[in-house]
Amino acid sequence: MSGTSLTDNLNAAHAAPVEGPSVPVLMADLGRRARKAARRVALASPEEKNAALNAMAASIRAHAGTILAANAEDLAEARAKGQTPAFIDRLTLDSERLEGIAAAVESIAGLPDPVGRVLASFERPNGLLIERVATPLGVIGVIFESRPNVTADAGALCLKAGNAAILRTGSESFRTSQAIADAMGEGLRQAGLPADAVALVPTRDRAAVGAMLSGLEGNLDVIVPRGGKSLVARVQEEARVPVFAHLEGICHVFVHERADLDMARRIVLNAKMRRTGICGSAETLLVDRACAATHLKPLVSMLLDAGCAVRGDEAVQAVDPRVTPATEEDWRTEYLDAIISARVVDGLEEAVAHIEAFGSHHTDSIVTDDAAAAERFMAEVDSAVVLHNASTQFADGGEFGFGAEIGIATGRMHARGPVGVEQLTSFKYRVRGSGQTRP
Amino acid sequence: MSGTSLTDNLNAAHAAPVEGPSVPVLMADLGRRARKAARRVALASPEEKNAALNAMAASIRAHAGTILAANAEDLAEARAKGQTPAFIDRLTLDSERLEGIAAAVESIAGLPDPVGRVLASFERPNGLLIERVATPLGVIGVIFESRPNVTADAGALCLKAGNAAILRTGSESFRTSQAIADAMGEGLRQAGLPADAVALVPTRDRAAVGAMLSGLEGNLDVIVPRGGKSLVARVQEEARVPVFAHLEGICHVFVHERADLDMARRIVLNAKMRRTGICGSAETLLVDRACAATHLKPLVSMLLDAGCAVRGDEAVQAVDPRVTPATEEDWRTEYLDAIISARVVDGLEEAVAHIEAFGSHHTDSIVTDDAAAAERFMAEVDSAVVLHNASTQFADGGEFGFGAEIGIATGRMHARGPVGVEQLTSFKYRVRGSGQTRP
Repeated sequence: MSGTSLTDNLNAAHAAPVEGPSVPVLMADLGRRARKAARRVALASPEEKNAALNAMAASIRAHAGTILAANAEDLAEARAKGQTPAFIDRLTLDSERLEGIAAAVESIAGLPDPVGRVLASFERPNGLLIERVATPLGVIGVIFESRPNVTADAGALCLKAGNAAILRTGSESFRTSQAIADAMGEGLRQAGLPADAVALVPTRDRAAVGAMLSGLEGNLDVIVPRGGKSLVARVQEEARVPVFAHLEGICHVFVHERADLDMARRIVLNAKMRRTGICGSAETLLVDRACAATHLKPLVSMLLDAGCAVRGDEAVQAVDPRVTPATEEDWRTEYLDAIISARVVDGLEEAVAHIEAFGSHHTDSIVTDDAAAAERFMAEVDSAVVLHNASTQFADGGEFGFGAEIGIATGRMHARGPVGVEQLTSFKYRVRGSGQTRP
Repeated sequence: MSGTSLTDNLNAAHAAPVEGPSVPVLMADLGRRARKAARRVALASPEEKNAALNAMAASIRAHAGTILAANAEDLAEARAKGQTPAFIDRLTLDSERLEGIAAAVESIAGLPDPVGRVLASFERPNGLLIERVATPLGVIGVIFESRPNVTADAGALCLKAGNAAILRTGSESFRTSQAIADAMGEGLRQAGLPADAVALVPTRDRAAVGAMLSGLEGNLDVIVPRGGKSLVARVQEEARVPVFAHLEGICHVFVHERADLDMARRIVLNAKMRRTGICGSAETLLVDRACAATHLKPLVSMLLDAGCAVRGDEAVQAVDPRVTPATEEDWRTEYLDAIISARVVDGLEEAVAHIEAFGSHHTDSIVTDDAAAAERFMAEVDSAVVLHNASTQFADGGEFGFGAEIGIATGRMHARGPVGVEQLTSFKYRVRGSGQTRP
């Protein structure tokens, strides 16, 4: 691979490289090699996969010098381009962060193996024994922004579930991701598995993304985009293969008339303010009119006192002069910041209708001591995660006990909510007979 | 709806009707109404759905006269167009066939309700109780050829799983399907559910299919094409929403060196000849070189004697003069007829490689008394259904005990193999807390 010829075209959307294979040829070849590797790792035993994951972690540690040197080059380029301090911080690796990356790969080795699980089994009257058994999905494409740790996390999760991964990193962490991927490939080879099972797209040319979205001639089974809304929207719009993603998390907390005020305080504050930049943070507070007289002002003033801007309807504006008016646009907005929209609703029905109209089917919570109201809310709200008396910030694969997640999905197909190794599997039917023929 | 203006354009791919709403406007409205109906039926109790299904069956019986009169009109038009006798037969309803359609709807009422099943549940160390619960998928589009029974079967299966259905019938059964759909709508209303939950596309204009493939502005969640290869290929190529389908069933029977010859005879004959026109019928026979001396000639001669043409490699040609030479194209061909391709392979490994190279990931069977070989075959063959010592013709939702199927899927996402009511559901996470906030 001629690195210079391909990586010089950083901002050329579809420019062909000056030398070496064209991006479509390069990507088609990558797809074929990933498919071949996928067939091999699909049949790897749990022990083989775990040995490979541990070897990958060891190799990342052994190549710390190379990885940190590559990272220094990426950082120099990013600084020269005037990237923000927050961006530089996310891109920066040091020994401690690299150890964290290696340890995360090892922890994925420690998860239960999701392949081969018998998901259902039944015997037919004719004696046929039918089992539905978990199998790998195949080849998983991950398109992510410049966060070096995702290279290792995503590759390790895909491998654990018996899949090959094709990883497309953001341009600014290309050298770092390549060094990490090289180290992982060495670990795979040491464990007797093909290095192509975790493949980094070996060019920064953006045409590579287009090739992935078109499905690599049938050699890509699903795409997981990890990044901002514009990346996810483009992938959802253009991909010719299934996508596991959420476009945004417009999460609600509904404080029902029978909510305990102290519990509502803790949950609302945590749901909004624990971390404002994650998809599970609350963006809208709905307060039941039946408890507004007692609950609304304490909740709104608490948020304002904690440094959160509140944009409210007239009832919310009336309880604190610091509240600014909410427009309809606010109900549709994922702030990812210390801002919340708030309104008073006429009971559970209007709360559900508001969430249906403005939510993003991600994560929504009801606070109430009324078990029947909670069950109705959790049945009627059509979101990946619905909670009763708990913070929306629990929408996370780690918090669900999945060990790690490759993302959170809001579609209704295959994977929904946190996507862990179980959701990176498909299934087949295994039928055992003794000579049965169909009448 | 102005029937004449829309249905006069039978062969105009994208012609706008002379009067009434345009097809895009019509279809967008249909999608919105289906989404609204889907929200209602998603929350219907098992009893409500079953009452509706029974009312639909009763209404089909009550409107037998109208339905058979509509069918007579469809038949007259089909005959005038010179359709084949086989086509006319599939299109024809009589009292007995209509009773079969009504009884099938009732039998779907008798299936276990797939919605609300707890698919997994776990408690986290912080006390959160997390359940993965089956939910309806939403709005399911079914595009099928002119078989009147599919209208009722597909609508009933979708409703059982809490979904709304948008049904697009082949042009030639339009009047019959409309009469059946009208009767089902009346049954739904009698049971207090919206008639829009089972909606027939109310135009024969082909532009309606294009609107469905584009997803009806987000109001269509999945498409199930039922019909010939060209229909399925178009849907797979153009759909902007997930598709449950199989393009073809190139199914194999591999007779392993340790196969019992009598069992192999029964299975091969049944797999090929029980019904040659279904997707689970075998199209290729693979015989292990290690048993070819004893097994090949009996199997090949048996097929030939049963009226099956055999296209074979040189080894197969050598055992019977009636065998004609197979070309590489034969290994890729779904005959759906009394024709089989046959070759000798060097053991299990070459059998698996042949299936990987030429199969369609549908259904494949090994005949052997060697349990280890069977396990290896079932692990390595990447098909929706893999069988040991049983006929490939068991690839069927009814044979699997699903009660009924809306189709068979060969994709790896969400549904694979026979698609019954369970596969017409999604899931959500229901989380119950007692005030937990995330640290």
